[in-house]
Amino acid sequence: MFIHKQTLQYPSKPEKPDAVYARKLQEVIGGQYGEITVAMQYSFQAWNAHIPGKYRDLLFSTAAEEFGHIEMLATMVAQLLEKAPLGITEQALQDDPAVAAIIGGTDLQQAIVSGAGARPVDSMGNPWTGAYITASGNLLADMTSNVNAEMQGRVQVARLYHMTDDRGVKDLLGFLLARDTMHQNQWLAAARELQAEGNEKLPVPSNFPQGKEHGEFAYQAINFSDGAHMAGGSWASGPAPDGLGKFTYVETPPEGVPMAPPTRPDARFYGTTDIPNVVEKIAGKVQDKLNKE
Amino acid sequence: MFIHKQTLQYPSKPEKPDAVYARKLQEVIGGQYGEITVAMQYSFQAWNAHIPGKYRDLLFSTAAEEFGHIEMLATMVAQLLEKAPLGITEQALQDDPAVAAIIGGTDLQQAIVSGAGARPVDSMGNPWTGAYITASGNLLADMTSNVNAEMQGRVQVARLYHMTDDRGVKDLLGFLLARDTMHQNQWLAAARELQAEGNEKLPVPSNFPQGKEHGEFAYQAINFSDGAHMAGGSWASGPAPDGLGKFTYVETPPEGVPMAPPTRPDARFYGTTDIPNVVEKIAGKVQDKLNKE
Amino acid sequence: MFIHKQTLQYPSKPEKPDAVYARKLQEVIGGQYGEITVAMQYSFQAWNAHIPGKYRDLLFSTAAEEFGHIEMLATMVAQLLEKAPLGITEQALQDDPAVAAIIGGTDLQQAIVSGAGARPVDSMGNPWTGAYITASGNLLADMTSNVNAEMQGRVQVARLYHMTDDRGVKDLLGFLLARDTMHQNQWLAAARELQAEGNEKLPVPSNFPQGKEHGEFAYQAINFSDGAHMAGGSWASGPAPDGLGKFTYVETPPEGVPMAPPTRPDARFYGTTDIPNVVEKIAGKVQDKLNKE
Amino acid sequence: MFIHKQTLQYPSKPEKPDAVYARKLQEVIGGQYGEITVAMQYSFQAWNAHIPGKYRDLLFSTAAEEFGHIEMLATMVAQLLEKAPLGITEQALQDDPAVAAIIGGTDLQQAIVSGAGARPVDSMGNPWTGAYITASGNLLADMTSNVNAEMQGRVQVARLYHMTDDRGVKDLLGFLLARDTMHQNQWLAAARELQAEGNEKLPVPSNFPQGKEHGEFAYQAINFSDGAHMAGGSWASGPAPDGLGKFTYVETPPEGVPMAPPTRPDARFYGTTDIPNVVEKIAGKVQDKLNKE
Amino acid sequence: MFIHKQTLQYPSKPEKPDAVYARKLQEVIGGQYGEITVAMQYSFQAWNAHIPGKYRDLLFSTAAEEFGHIEMLATMVAQLLEKAPLGITEQALQDDPAVAAIIGGTDLQQAIVSGAGARPVDSMGNPWTGAYITASGNLLADMTSNVNAEMQGRVQVARLYHMTDDRGVKDLLGFLLARDTMHQNQWLAAARELQAEGNEKLPVPSNFPQGKEHGEFAYQAINFSDGAHMAGGSWASGPAPDGLGKFTYVETPPEGVPMAPPTRPDARFYGTTDIPNVVEKIAGKVQDKLNKE
Amino acid sequence: MFIHKQTLQYPSKPEKPDAVYARKLQEVIGGQYGEITVAMQYSFQAWNAHIPGKYRDLLFSTAAEEFGHIEMLATMVAQLLEKAPLGITEQALQDDPAVAAIIGGTDLQQAIVSGAGARPVDSMGNPWTGAYITASGNLLADMTSNVNAEMQGRVQVARLYHMTDDRGVKDLLGFLLARDTMHQNQWLAAARELQAEGNEKLPVPSNFPQGKEHGEFAYQAINFSDGAHMAGGSWASGPAPDGLGKFTYVETPPEGVPMAPPTRPDARFYGTTDIPNVVEKIAGKVQDKLNKE
Repeated sequence: MFIHKQTLQYPSKPEKPDAVYARKLQEVIGGQYGEITVAMQYSFQAWNAHIPGKYRDLLFSTAAEEFGHIEMLATMVAQLLEKAPLGITEQALQDDPAVAAIIGGTDLQQAIVSGAGARPVDSMGNPWTGAYITASGNLLADMTSNVNAEMQGRVQVARLYHMTDDRGVKDLLGFLLARDTMHQNQWLAAARELQAEGNEKLPVPSNFPQGKEHGEFAYQAINFSDGAHMAGGSWASGPAPDGLGKFTYVETPPEGVPMAPPTRPDARFYGTTDIPNVVEKIAGKVQDKLNKE
Repeated sequence: MFIHKQTLQYPSKPEKPDAVYARKLQEVIGGQYGEITVAMQYSFQAWNAHIPGKYRDLLFSTAAEEFGHIEMLATMVAQLLEKAPLGITEQALQDDPAVAAIIGGTDLQQAIVSGAGARPVDSMGNPWTGAYITASGNLLADMTSNVNAEMQGRVQVARLYHMTDDRGVKDLLGFLLARDTMHQNQWLAAARELQAEGNEKLPVPSNFPQGKEHGEFAYQAINFSDGAHMAGGSWASGPAPDGLGKFTYVETPPEGVPMAPPTRPDARFYGTTDIPNVVEKIAGKVQDKLNKE
Repeated sequence: MFIHKQTLQYPSKPEKPDAVYARKLQEVIGGQYGEITVAMQYSFQAWNAHIPGKYRDLLFSTAAEEFGHIEMLATMVAQLLEKAPLGITEQALQDDPAVAAIIGGTDLQQAIVSGAGARPVDSMGNPWTGAYITASGNLLADMTSNVNAEMQGRVQVARLYHMTDDRGVKDLLGFLLARDTMHQNQWLAAARELQAEGNEKLPVPSNFPQGKEHGEFAYQAINFSDGAHMAGGSWASGPAPDGLGKFTYVETPPEGVPMAPPTRPDARFYGTTDIPNVVEKIAGKVQDKLNKE
Repeated sequence: MFIHKQTLQYPSKPEKPDAVYARKLQEVIGGQYGEITVAMQYSFQAWNAHIPGKYRDLLFSTAAEEFGHIEMLATMVAQLLEKAPLGITEQALQDDPAVAAIIGGTDLQQAIVSGAGARPVDSMGNPWTGAYITASGNLLADMTSNVNAEMQGRVQVARLYHMTDDRGVKDLLGFLLARDTMHQNQWLAAARELQAEGNEKLPVPSNFPQGKEHGEFAYQAINFSDGAHMAGGSWASGPAPDGLGKFTYVETPPEGVPMAPPTRPDARFYGTTDIPNVVEKIAGKVQDKLNKE
Repeated sequence: MFIHKQTLQYPSKPEKPDAVYARKLQEVIGGQYGEITVAMQYSFQAWNAHIPGKYRDLLFSTAAEEFGHIEMLATMVAQLLEKAPLGITEQALQDDPAVAAIIGGTDLQQAIVSGAGARPVDSMGNPWTGAYITASGNLLADMTSNVNAEMQGRVQVARLYHMTDDRGVKDLLGFLLARDTMHQNQWLAAARELQAEGNEKLPVPSNFPQGKEHGEFAYQAINFSDGAHMAGGSWASGPAPDGLGKFTYVETPPEGVPMAPPTRPDARFYGTTDIPNVVEKIAGKVQDKLNKE
Repeated sequence: MFIHKQTLQYPSKPEKPDAVYARKLQEVIGGQYGEITVAMQYSFQAWNAHIPGKYRDLLFSTAAEEFGHIEMLATMVAQLLEKAPLGITEQALQDDPAVAAIIGGTDLQQAIVSGAGARPVDSMGNPWTGAYITASGNLLADMTSNVNAEMQGRVQVARLYHMTDDRGVKDLLGFLLARDTMHQNQWLAAARELQAEGNEKLPVPSNFPQGKEHGEFAYQAINFSDGAHMAGGSWASGPAPDGLGKFTYVETPPEGVPMAPPTRPDARFYGTTDIPNVVEKIAGKVQDKLNKE
């Protein structure tokens, strides 16, 4: 159950209108690594969790916080748009290049569709999609996915920080960067704790019966490109991070095995084969059969 | 530049037809964490890389290997479909429940669209999308994204392993599981090496000027749910994984700050406001102006 | 700000596993008119609202309730899947038609991707998309959109009610149907109140300067098909619902005006035109110019 | 059956080229509430209708008219683009800010992909999708959906009206606004007539057996936010619009019921559970079994 | 302008219900090469055409016919679903494998969403998208695209023909196959006529100034795979179809040229580079600058 | 199996930065007819091929070359972005219209998401999708699809050629145009060779039993529009390109047959019908039955 409170976790108020920046902020609202993604990802991980207790509590807590972050950003966008020129011809003649330039950089749907409001889309206007989230039920895999999401998210917020001079916006981003730091750290801590407690180990999933995996290929660094430096990395020799094997380096891919011959499915799929006589024969039989109908 | 060889890295040949399983395998061809995703993700990371040398060589090499994995799975799918009942009424009467059951579980487009062949889609028929990949230019973030992709991918292959009794299919999956083990380990190793060499540190991005982030919020575990156990995790006390701060626990979210008042954009966006007189006044002026046109 | 509580508004517990039904329930989680849609739609309407007070309070309140409904349905799905056959071969041999039949009707990604858990998708596996929601800033338009969403949603839940015999599931659906009844009524009441208070009128948007609209076409029921009964409806004669005009019936579409002639854009777009000489002449000039480069 | 006539319902001819505006018009061609949506929505409602006669005749008629509206807008777009600068370097040097500004605001695919022509996309370039339409078979629900579509559509055309000074464009929009007025009114009239004739009532669907719905929750206005004004609306007391119940106000959500405990699916889904011994035991058994294969 | 007539071009009436087949037919309604695609593709080609006269008349005519084909298929689908078991538990108990099998193969949204009606989606439930169509303004390219669409469409209808024994359905498909034959032939004829009249030639676009293309690569069959037989095709020697060059065969790809070195964008994008000192220096300067703010 | 080489087929190096053009180039990387499309299309055609030998070898070879073309374009994009203003406020103040204009025309995600790198999207930011490709197993259909792809692709590259003055970019495009010429010719040659060898004929699929198609409609040019010139084309009289029939012209569509009456599905789908009494009766029975539960 979710309860809403009409306050914000941190102030969200720009100094001045900026429609171009309002569009850029959409990336961290409705983009692949925006706040909708993390709110929904942590929610579904919690709903699909198989253990009660601290990990699930952490997921629920962070999910709820992230829903509030969407809110802070959406209200910021609405304020950035409030008095900004958005294409109304009387306030912004299109032959003034400075204004036209701004129009060129705006999210047209923020004007035409939402009437100067935020939308669940990214900075290029792609709608947010459920295909962005990850919730596998395996907590070590999912915590790693969360670390990934927070890293990419923080990189994007950091870039956005340098794209404005508005102190109000920068103040909010400074807060979000700090929370991303927290969340990056917390998922890393959780991933470590899962391993320390023996719930999950590397490689994920760790309780797949190891004998069924073809172990001879599990630690080979095979070079499929012609880069000279691949052998120099820590992935080409020495113990692997999972503690179960030792890396070896294979300079060129082995010859490989022949492909199976091309398939010849039923003639009634009308694929092209190299046995036209047979095709015709089958077609003839089909014809006969059909004629009798 | 890519050169193609008409051999496979490992045998890919099923014992018998199985159209239902051919559909399931689509998940690891064209799903969110399928082989197309990793092949394209590593390619774009390499093309967008900002350092020559071992990390980029590793990306190019693994990308090329993954393109070959798509090929092994696609040819496996074609063989699983080759002699399987796919809805042709004469070979499989629809009133035989056993056969109808199989038809019910098949990918209809593998029959109608590709004529008993593989497709760039997932197991529910969603086309692969470029929105699945991650390539930010920040190598520590991207290597973590790669670890994530290989973990989710290996979890899915492990699940698929238990969904068939076909020795040919299991043999190929056993090989892919091993390569996932390798790739999981290699990206973990690369992420560690980046930190060991001082290229990148935690939190990502590590060279964002720390003073601009609101540090007082950067290590607070704030509980936005009412779970009793969140305080018990390693994320609620003790040093954070980035080595830069100490976690503290905040049992309930602070009160927060008032939201900014609702925005009142230009009346010509026809949003509903609480100042109808003003709206009418503006509308009247617009009317006057328009009347003169 | 959202606060999460680890209780549910109403019990959500099935009597027995049912993977086929777990897939059907996805429609009202992540479909066009599922709970994610209404939760996000009401949230964005609230964030984009231009009036403080009762309408916005109602939006915030209902949005928060709907997030809790996603939760009830997602945990229901996880329980329906918990002990259901999902394709693991040892528990469900594929040559048993009864079991294979069930597998045929399941959401394969609930098994392979989420490990027996819910997902943000509809019953055919399409991911939820931000393109489903409506938030225009015009409250009468948006309240009508909300009535629409609740009507379609209740129709779908009513259909689903007849597709199961599980008392636990039916109990939850009986609750959701009641809340849909409430929400359908509340948005209708709000739409009426907006008009009663004079905030908005019909047609939406009502303060568009009426003189600029070509009024002579605003109340004509023109028949573009050859159906004999169109003239018999209340839309073909009598006063229009907006109280501003009277319907008239036009039996066949007037002749119309000629289309503008086809466009002839710049030759360097390589469109096919009927003036090949000119094309060649321009191409020649381009060639000359390019040759000099 | 559809017959095409090479005339337009109303003149569609701009005064002058305007590539930026050509992009904006895409919203009402291929956007969520553009002409393609209504044309297809009314068509599918007609094809799925369960009653012959006036309602279906109205659907067929309006569908056909809307296909003609796509045509008027598409030919308008082609003319707006015909002589507009679209990035050909010789006609529009990129270092002239005025021209570059225009380029910045154009739909690049109108130039590169369609060669100065219209496309089935919205103003941000998202392709039109079948996911936009609604056709449930329930006429009261669908007529309400149509009212919604015409309201949102008219709001968007009204906004676009203020974004140009071109008399030709404004003339066409004035016509479309009038037809939207008609269509808004006609669907409202049809929705009322359905109720007056007793075909459908509120709440939709009205013939769901009322006793199976948990009536005690059907008229409760429960406040899930902390807004002080929600109780003041007509949805919190008095008779509900469906005439079947009376609204009551519930100031805070009741405590709720405990969630079901987390699920523990089959170990071979490799989800993380709190019973590692059991997991290992099962894994051991799997291993044994697999070893024997 | 489009006028609708309430008759069909050809009878569309099944002998008996078949929900599984109703799903399969969706492919040729709303799939990549279904009737919606061709109707919309020919419409947009006509609206974007740059020549009046026979080619555009042909496009308008065929577009209108194809809209009628959607109608024939949609009404067929509704009839196939009318009395078919679609999951209502009292009519079709789920533990009867024969019925469950049918349910497994149905389009769940045809039941839950459209109430036993057709939808604008393909056989796997993907909504039709505007991204399927092609309308470039170059008539030879577009006529070739139309030939392609009709070929793929006819292949799919031919496959579907063998997937049913229903004489009513087969009768309609026999008609559609004939129209596909016509349309395949007509676009081929149009493509030839365009060339015969000198409007367009090969390669498309034919009036691109040939000297600017690097002609030495324009007729080389370079083998990027290791297939032994590529040299044996008519593409490896002899005159090219465009009549402008002669094919030559290149057995292995030339060595190529070095890639440009990796890029080093602005440090404030936080990409990982090999010049950490510089990064830190810039970061320091940024810090200084920011401190002064 | 694919092997990567760290060289390019042709130099790819711009003279100077140009972020606006970097966005335009995305069209031929990740658009409907970009290099990802052809690389994946030829790959899946090869994997689904039913004949070994020259056609499949040609597909594998061209697929591999196209993957290399993605690489050339992606590295070009990265270089165009390397030193271009992308919104960092200190390097490009937003109130300088010239710079703002450029920002307006950029792909914001190339900055915020990929940190000045290429992405798998088109010029409007739509992610590449597997729905773009065609691989039916019928080689004549697929070769025609390939001709189509290369024609549209070459048209787009030709347009892009005129949108830049950068000699480095033009040099690369001149090379790509030549390869498109080659590939257009090669697929045309292959399509002819398939017919010459008797593998496939027109109409596609040619071995569908001709008697089952309603031949009387197979060569009729029926005019569904009112264009006067349709009869003048080579598609309205004379022999058809498939050599099997003669075109005839039908000036107006025949009257047609009546539609089937509207369907009346099970009352529990809550569709609106014209037999309310029956509905209520059934509803009553349902009620009774439910009451007993």
